[in-house]
Amino acid sequence: MTIRIDFEPVGRRGECPEGQSLLDCARQLGVDLVNLCGGSGTCGRCKVQILRGQVSELTPRERELLTSRELAEGYRLACRTVPLSDCRVGVPPESLTAPQRTQVEGLEVVVDLEPPVCAYPLQLKPPSLEDGDLQADGERLLNALAQQHQVEHCAVDLEVLCDLSRRVRGDNWRANVAVRDGREIVALLSLSHRPLGLAVDLGTTKIAGYLLDLESGQTLASQGMMNPQISYGEDVIARMAHAQEGPTEAAQLQAMVAKALNQMAADMCAGVDADPAEIVEAVVVGNTAMHHLFLQLPVEQLARAPYVPAVAEGLDVKARDVGLAIASGGYVHLLPNIAGFVGADHVAMLLATGVAQAEDIVLALDIGTNTEVCLANRGAMTSVSCASGPAFEGAHITHGMRAAKGAIERVRITDDRVEYQAIGGAPPVGLCGSGILDGLAELHRIGVLDATGRLGEHPRVRVGSDGAREFVLLGEEERGGQPAITITQKDVRELQLAKGAMRAGIQILLEAQGLSEQAIDRVIIAGAFGTYIDVSSAVAIGMLPSLPLDRFRQVGNAAGAGARLALVSRSKRAEAQEIARRVGYIELATEPRFMRIFAEAMSLG
Amino acid sequence: MTIRIDFEPVGRRGECPEGQSLLDCARQLGVDLVNLCGGSGTCGRCKVQILRGQVSELTPRERELLTSRELAEGYRLACRTVPLSDCRVGVPPESLTAPQRTQVEGLEVVVDLEPPVCAYPLQLKPPSLEDGDLQADGERLLNALAQQHQVEHCAVDLEVLCDLSRRVRGDNWRANVAVRDGREIVALLSLSHRPLGLAVDLGTTKIAGYLLDLESGQTLASQGMMNPQISYGEDVIARMAHAQEGPTEAAQLQAMVAKALNQMAADMCAGVDADPAEIVEAVVVGNTAMHHLFLQLPVEQLARAPYVPAVAEGLDVKARDVGLAIASGGYVHLLPNIAGFVGADHVAMLLATGVAQAEDIVLALDIGTNTEVCLANRGAMTSVSCASGPAFEGAHITHGMRAAKGAIERVRITDDRVEYQAIGGAPPVGLCGSGILDGLAELHRIGVLDATGRLGEHPRVRVGSDGAREFVLLGEEERGGQPAITITQKDVRELQLAKGAMRAGIQILLEAQGLSEQAIDRVIIAGAFGTYIDVSSAVAIGMLPSLPLDRFRQVGNAAGAGARLALVSRSKRAEAQEIARRVGYIELATEPRFMRIFAEAMSLG
Repeated sequence: MTIRIDFEPVGRRGECPEGQSLLDCARQLGVDLVNLCGGSGTCGRCKVQILRGQVSELTPRERELLTSRELAEGYRLACRTVPLSDCRVGVPPESLTAPQRTQVEGLEVVVDLEPPVCAYPLQLKPPSLEDGDLQADGERLLNALAQQHQVEHCAVDLEVLCDLSRRVRGDNWRANVAVRDGREIVALLSLSHRPLGLAVDLGTTKIAGYLLDLESGQTLASQGMMNPQISYGEDVIARMAHAQEGPTEAAQLQAMVAKALNQMAADMCAGVDADPAEIVEAVVVGNTAMHHLFLQLPVEQLARAPYVPAVAEGLDVKARDVGLAIASGGYVHLLPNIAGFVGADHVAMLLATGVAQAEDIVLALDIGTNTEVCLANRGAMTSVSCASGPAFEGAHITHGMRAAKGAIERVRITDDRVEYQAIGGAPPVGLCGSGILDGLAELHRIGVLDATGRLGEHPRVRVGSDGAREFVLLGEEERGGQPAITITQKDVRELQLAKGAMRAGIQILLEAQGLSEQAIDRVIIAGAFGTYIDVSSAVAIGMLPSLPLDRFRQVGNAAGAGARLALVSRSKRAEAQEIARRVGYIELATEPRFMRIFAEAMSLG
Repeated sequence: MTIRIDFEPVGRRGECPEGQSLLDCARQLGVDLVNLCGGSGTCGRCKVQILRGQVSELTPRERELLTSRELAEGYRLACRTVPLSDCRVGVPPESLTAPQRTQVEGLEVVVDLEPPVCAYPLQLKPPSLEDGDLQADGERLLNALAQQHQVEHCAVDLEVLCDLSRRVRGDNWRANVAVRDGREIVALLSLSHRPLGLAVDLGTTKIAGYLLDLESGQTLASQGMMNPQISYGEDVIARMAHAQEGPTEAAQLQAMVAKALNQMAADMCAGVDADPAEIVEAVVVGNTAMHHLFLQLPVEQLARAPYVPAVAEGLDVKARDVGLAIASGGYVHLLPNIAGFVGADHVAMLLATGVAQAEDIVLALDIGTNTEVCLANRGAMTSVSCASGPAFEGAHITHGMRAAKGAIERVRITDDRVEYQAIGGAPPVGLCGSGILDGLAELHRIGVLDATGRLGEHPRVRVGSDGAREFVLLGEEERGGQPAITITQKDVRELQLAKGAMRAGIQILLEAQGLSEQAIDRVIIAGAFGTYIDVSSAVAIGMLPSLPLDRFRQVGNAAGAGARLALVSRSKRAEAQEIARRVGYIELATEPRFMRIFAEAMSLG
């Protein structure tokens, strides 16, 4: 006897033998669930939600490891649960290992479709000397549009005009025009094709792209890639310095991103048998520096106090003016920036998470090289930007690495035994951000790290080659003679700086509103790193406020979700503009209390 | 004793000895007046208008050679008139030799200024960390514009944004913004500078450019040059064929014109100590083919029946999209086309001559390689295009040449003596269009050419090297052994074809309205060639309707004047659009009567 199991939203399904655990079913169907304990029911990481079907009874272990809210919502531990009938099983992103998470992360885009560009099929009458109908092609098209669809007073983009005469003759006097805001024909589509849209979250480290069907709002494809500008510096400061070397350098940085986006668009289109020329609109969000470098706006004034953007309002620019190879007349919409270090990606995150409309007190963070934090007190929003640095991306950490295959992403320490989970189940080669965070939390939990962050005594603590102490996660002998993987005293300090900056930002926001930590009803954690972390570890080391865990929600790439919302909805664009106007901004550099609070926030206690 | 003479509009003035003729004064001051008879008072070409001052009494010769209307308006023959006091003397274009005419030709632009782009000086408050004013530069500029000039809801061109941060800091937080239609900042001007405009008449053979001050409407500079596309063919058919060879060829033709216009703009700016970046708007008019090639619009459908333009409506395109190096965000406005062979230059001519508002019956012609003719019956306008060919430009004529130094532009034949006027008073080297026309009229007048155009007997008629007859204007011995300059039987046929096409077009228009030739109240002749011809010669050979000479008016480059009107007045742009909509078009190719009328119109009788 077999049972049919359907894992969502990863979309893996198939027949599994009766009587085996959901964890085994997942393994069999290629769903990489996190598990540190090897399925012994002790780590509590392999949480899944039973959406349909009958499963075995709850075990005492599950009652212990799952919150009451999780239990009420049907969450179970996959290793402790045996399906009794065909089942539909929801896998939350945090239960997936990193590579699979990138495919599904992000909020679902649910919005009334109101795309800025719509397609209209047209049937034209051919011109003729005989009946004296010698109207120009452009006016012929516009008249048909007015008569057949009541869309009047439209302009036609010059590049579209350049294509028009050949296309309408080749298509036997039929056309499928993409009209933007009822005002301009931006593309001629293939007769049977629907207009596509491209949403981009242009991060300092990573770029996430989404290809959408503008008529259905459906995400047809998504893709992640490294930002190629990284070869000119890991952080925005280094890249802005490069851009300031001269117009050639600025143009080079711009062209790198344009090329990457073109490649991404081409790849995603190829996957769904479409052509990038059918992409009639793009939305790009990024921090203010990425936004400026993409548009080749000047960054001198952004890199120096008082850190003023060249422009903050939302912009519509012709895709061709920024080198994007989409529909000839298509536009790129840039969501508004808020300040020099709080950019359009933050606006997109606030848009996607609905913080602006929330009637409770919400803290929303987008954790990355720069962490933007917004405190929304019943819709009154104030934001800060914290220079959390690249430690969370695995940089500046002795054995740090990005969240790629072989990166240790979960750590548990029991006495002198170290349990870990490496991405892809591969032999471990280093530590990614969430692994370091887990490590720190564990070291603090077992008392090896004190509140000041000093590494104390432990059988695995030794003096490293640089004379400083380090904790050995995997020794040379455990790695078959390869160098050990350790957490050094310096690594601890890096993490303390990062988490201290973030926590201090949160504290400044709370003080500005006269609120205590406990007043926060919900904490929304966005961003790739934020999605992968173990929230309890982050709370344990004081990176996040000490609140009940069920007040936290990890939403994945919310900036990307916001970009997709803005791509398919004109109202959402207006809302983004409204959010950018309403958000108050506190510049930490001029905040007199900041240094004191920052120093306190570095404590692990 | 000396007398001060001021020649207008050429603007040459100075002191001349008392007692000498105005013709001698003109020579002395460098004003090249036409005179065939060497100042003997017989040719009647050196007409000038006495605008102020006392002159000698009218001579009987002048009473004979000037019309009563000319006499009433103060016209005199310069060779017969001696100034008796300081004088201001008007020189009509037709009395100047060609090179000087090109400087002054064209209707004066008189219009209520309503420029599409206006400049606003702004004073900005610098951002500061101290007072928390961290507004982005773009919004800072727009807020200042709204507060200081009540111009609201403006956008800022992307290229302008790219310049903005540096410029406002360099100018100590002052700015001078050029705003288009109250909607978009298209340029940052130097603080004390006024916005400039560029008007271009893009002819198949010649390009005329005008640099205007948009705030005063004044023409600061003008320049003429050959259309460099001419290396790919003298007529539009050849050039369209070249463009159809492929996108590279089309791009090449486009780039040639853009480069020429950039050179022209740079030259004119250099002459008035300005920078092309201060040109914030351009207007380009040309025939439909030139219009399409300039925008790189497809021409396949234009070159083939039913000869449909890709677009006819007026267009605004970003200058950078067509390679024009003016202000970074500036636009080029293209006046509307009417049909495949009646383009925006015709609309500009109708705009400048006010034909649309005329309450009488007006025939307006723009004579060139293609001649467009409009018959306006109390404002009801119908136009045709006549393939008059390049004969009027001196092409396809045995000894033809363009109107340049040494070209014979006037001819008079008395018995076997030939009198002529060569441009610049230089030794004659060939015949330009007006010279050929004069020659034909004279040969017909003295009976050497019959009505069918056959060259008869005359001491100067001989059989040429090709076995056909030719009339020797200047023999080998008269040119010191150089080849003779002749008018051949073939030349006569070329001219007959050209004038026949034009006259047939006029006839079709008259028949369509049920009007006789005599009903025409006024004939307006525009275009370079049209300005230089002797109207009586054109009437004599039947190129123009047989009407009293005082019904004709030669207005020079009316298309260029129309372009200048559209440059400084938004109402005039709207009027141009209205004209293009109202003008009826008759396609001669499908007009059944055309061939019969054309055959008749070739007669010189």
